[in-house]
Amino acid sequence: MLTLADPIEHARRVHARRVAVIDGDRQLSFAELYERSHRLACGLLALGLKPGDRVALLSVNSHRYIEAFFGLPAHGLILVPLNTRLAMPELQSIVRDCQPRVLLTDRDPGALGAMFERVISIPGDYETVLETAQLSAAPEIAEESVATLFYTGGTTGLPKGVMLTHRNLIANAFHKTIACSLSESEVFLAAPAMFHVAGVAPLVGLVWLGATSVVLPSFDPERCLDVIAQHHITLMIPVPTMLGAMIAAQRQKPRDVSSLRLVGHAGSPIATDTIQAAERAFPGAELAQFYGATETASVVTAFRNEERAIGTPLLGSCGRATPGVAVRIVRPDGVECEDGEVGEIAVRGPNVTPGYWQNPAATAAALSGGWYRTGDAGLIREGGYLFVVDRLKDMIVSGAENVYSIEVEDVLHRHPAVLECAVFGIPDPIWGEAVHAVVVTLATEASEHELLAEALRQHCRTLIAGYKVPKRIEIQLEPLPKSGPGKILKRVLRDRFWRDADQSQRERRP
Amino acid sequence: MLTLADPIEHARRVHARRVAVIDGDRQLSFAELYERSHRLACGLLALGLKPGDRVALLSVNSHRYIEAFFGLPAHGLILVPLNTRLAMPELQSIVRDCQPRVLLTDRDPGALGAMFERVISIPGDYETVLETAQLSAAPEIAEESVATLFYTGGTTGLPKGVMLTHRNLIANAFHKTIACSLSESEVFLAAPAMFHVAGVAPLVGLVWLGATSVVLPSFDPERCLDVIAQHHITLMIPVPTMLGAMIAAQRQKPRDVSSLRLVGHAGSPIATDTIQAAERAFPGAELAQFYGATETASVVTAFRNEERAIGTPLLGSCGRATPGVAVRIVRPDGVECEDGEVGEIAVRGPNVTPGYWQNPAATAAALSGGWYRTGDAGLIREGGYLFVVDRLKDMIVSGAENVYSIEVEDVLHRHPAVLECAVFGIPDPIWGEAVHAVVVTLATEASEHELLAEALRQHCRTLIAGYKVPKRIEIQLEPLPKSGPGKILKRVLRDRFWRDADQSQRERRP
Repeated sequence: MLTLADPIEHARRVHARRVAVIDGDRQLSFAELYERSHRLACGLLALGLKPGDRVALLSVNSHRYIEAFFGLPAHGLILVPLNTRLAMPELQSIVRDCQPRVLLTDRDPGALGAMFERVISIPGDYETVLETAQLSAAPEIAEESVATLFYTGGTTGLPKGVMLTHRNLIANAFHKTIACSLSESEVFLAAPAMFHVAGVAPLVGLVWLGATSVVLPSFDPERCLDVIAQHHITLMIPVPTMLGAMIAAQRQKPRDVSSLRLVGHAGSPIATDTIQAAERAFPGAELAQFYGATETASVVTAFRNEERAIGTPLLGSCGRATPGVAVRIVRPDGVECEDGEVGEIAVRGPNVTPGYWQNPAATAAALSGGWYRTGDAGLIREGGYLFVVDRLKDMIVSGAENVYSIEVEDVLHRHPAVLECAVFGIPDPIWGEAVHAVVVTLATEASEHELLAEALRQHCRTLIAGYKVPKRIEIQLEPLPKSGPGKILKRVLRDRFWRDADQSQRERRP
Repeated sequence: MLTLADPIEHARRVHARRVAVIDGDRQLSFAELYERSHRLACGLLALGLKPGDRVALLSVNSHRYIEAFFGLPAHGLILVPLNTRLAMPELQSIVRDCQPRVLLTDRDPGALGAMFERVISIPGDYETVLETAQLSAAPEIAEESVATLFYTGGTTGLPKGVMLTHRNLIANAFHKTIACSLSESEVFLAAPAMFHVAGVAPLVGLVWLGATSVVLPSFDPERCLDVIAQHHITLMIPVPTMLGAMIAAQRQKPRDVSSLRLVGHAGSPIATDTIQAAERAFPGAELAQFYGATETASVVTAFRNEERAIGTPLLGSCGRATPGVAVRIVRPDGVECEDGEVGEIAVRGPNVTPGYWQNPAATAAALSGGWYRTGDAGLIREGGYLFVVDRLKDMIVSGAENVYSIEVEDVLHRHPAVLECAVFGIPDPIWGEAVHAVVVTLATEASEHELLAEALRQHCRTLIAGYKVPKRIEIQLEPLPKSGPGKILKRVLRDRFWRDADQSQRERRP
């Protein structure tokens, strides 16, 4: 019924001359955004690509990212945004999984290049494709067809491609437009990385409304604040780490941020201190928290006017399910919990992924009867307020990036000095959580431990993204604590760090 | 994916204690609204009704109307709201067409009663059904299944049941929530008749958001103004005739209407005078015009901040297509018109009906390739602004009720004194258009003409709704003007009335 072709076609007709995207000195009207999106897709199809083929995109944020996001799926191609922070072996593993035929990239692809039929450099080759494209009408696309594959780590250590259909992204656009009260007068700060669905999905509703997005290549707090003042930004949804950095920068050198209507945050828990500081740094702006996942095309719950909850038991909630999305707390057997009982958070709605790319086992483990099991433990209080209390998955959230412990443990185990290891998150004032490892090694001098830790970090850096590399590695000779059947008792190792954690973060736990 | 079960289930869980409906002295929370809706459906199913069965509802607006609107479709039953202003033969014709098994009604059904297996009186029997209902879980309903049948007149003179699926109504809820910027703090004046889709459809989004609706049994300008002041109404969407009456009443006896955020209007063209007067009568409120049809589950375009267009060429537009809905102007052969060229208005989106109940001929005539041909002539100006310039269907819009000329002509022809007749709309300061008839009769004295006209009106009153009965009937002896092939030239008869029409209404025509 509706696909990603619709918002951009609508904008071309209804909002043709309005400003769609501001990217540095470049400014695109909706007519131009449509034209460029359309040309890109037509140009790629002329290279022999067929609907259903995958196209990978490895780039910082730019107007071209937005063009690819709308244009390719509108013509039936599947866009695979790649996380620019991943290490080469991780990128290779994703490319092996979904076999994209073409790579669009703003950097030297290195060894990755050989895995594609064609590498199109940004901006050079990209502009040539647009200039030389033979235009043809977009085919009719089924709303249930896959539009994008966003990759996430997995509990098995292998990356999983979250299939988002056109319908998923369209549904999320309506949910998000309502959850954020978006209007045509919005000016959105598109600074969070678009290789995460939460970075690019807001564009769908904004384009439909004819609102403007100001794109930054990547997150920089000073630059963000300058852009807010310059372009009268009304809406931004940074992750808490970014928000914290912006608050600090604004305190140091205040900019005019009075245009801000809504300051949202999402992606990881936030400290009470940060909420209070945000209220002071961005006076007049409403604060809002959102909860979601890649598998839900982003938004699940919204906590609007969060600043009004300061000092109440509601603070720490991530809000209430947004219209269109159902949230339940379930026990391991799938039976729904009582109000206030902790269980696993499950989500259903037209925004929920049909599953993981060619991975029926992972799909079956995460989805049943239309319900997506998030792997987060939570409870719902009266009034429908959701609280996330823990993670059931062995996962660390550092600066809103998800790090699966097993990915890091697998890599550590490949080093010959490692006998046993355990990776978990410990509290970190900036990143929320920091990746921490405890490694058991063969009898060595204590004096060599520091050298070994550095060697292990170096080893990790070549194989996994920087944000997954343990910030600290403890080396020890004694074996890790284990349960009867030999399972490592990670909680025993972990708890001593959390006992002294930021009181405000503990308060959040109901 | 989503059905009418979802908003009410969502509201029960998330907004349980908030006020859902105020109806006179009665106030229902969302928990109660859910409970009563659920009980009603379970009670009806216990009478032997099965999913897909039709249930007719003939009643003024009330909280029970809302209960039936959510509860019945949520359990797979099809609700058939009946226009309370129709004459008995018209109601019988609808009941014959869709064969509902049960009638819910707040009045003596007269001869209609015998056409049903069971008549449930409101409130007596209705409350008994609720009290004695055995509760059972609602079955899973497909989103493409029919939720409601709203009947409209037809160009053939026979009523047509517009099938609206769950998906149609859900899509419209999202479109309308965005087109009106609805939020949880809304207090909606539910005064327009709920037997029209535009009267009841706003409830879907409002229930999902947890907003309050204040129900009036029917439209009364004094009562509406009192309720606005008493309940701090934020939103109302009357038809222009109602709006005009409210403006006059407010002028006579001003009430506190400062709570009004949005004053919408829809259903028929509006005079510039009325827009200007509305701005004065409801200062501070934004004015907005909406265009839609039963076949589109209501909203197609929205013109927000219409008051700002006073004195500009945009005034008279019904606005721009709302996100999710596509509008095109097409030539008779289906080819799209150029910008500014007049053609037929066509609409596509997930809100568009799959067709008319058991009427493939009418369905094929109105729908092709997902596009609904509205029968309205219009054009689109730069910026996507739609102007309705005429009606291609031989139809009169009087007080926002559609009157098909052929229905009235058919009835007139059944009278033995009528040789020829033509029915058309003439300008009317209150109703927008008034139904007017020219009748050719056998040679009689001019002195008898008045008697015959009154006899014909009386004849009509027994067969069609009061609003369809010609306000004036001209009797003449000379034959009606005809084209070569004998087709009555209605435009020749009609034009002399419109030549002197309200200048402001003409100004609207671009």
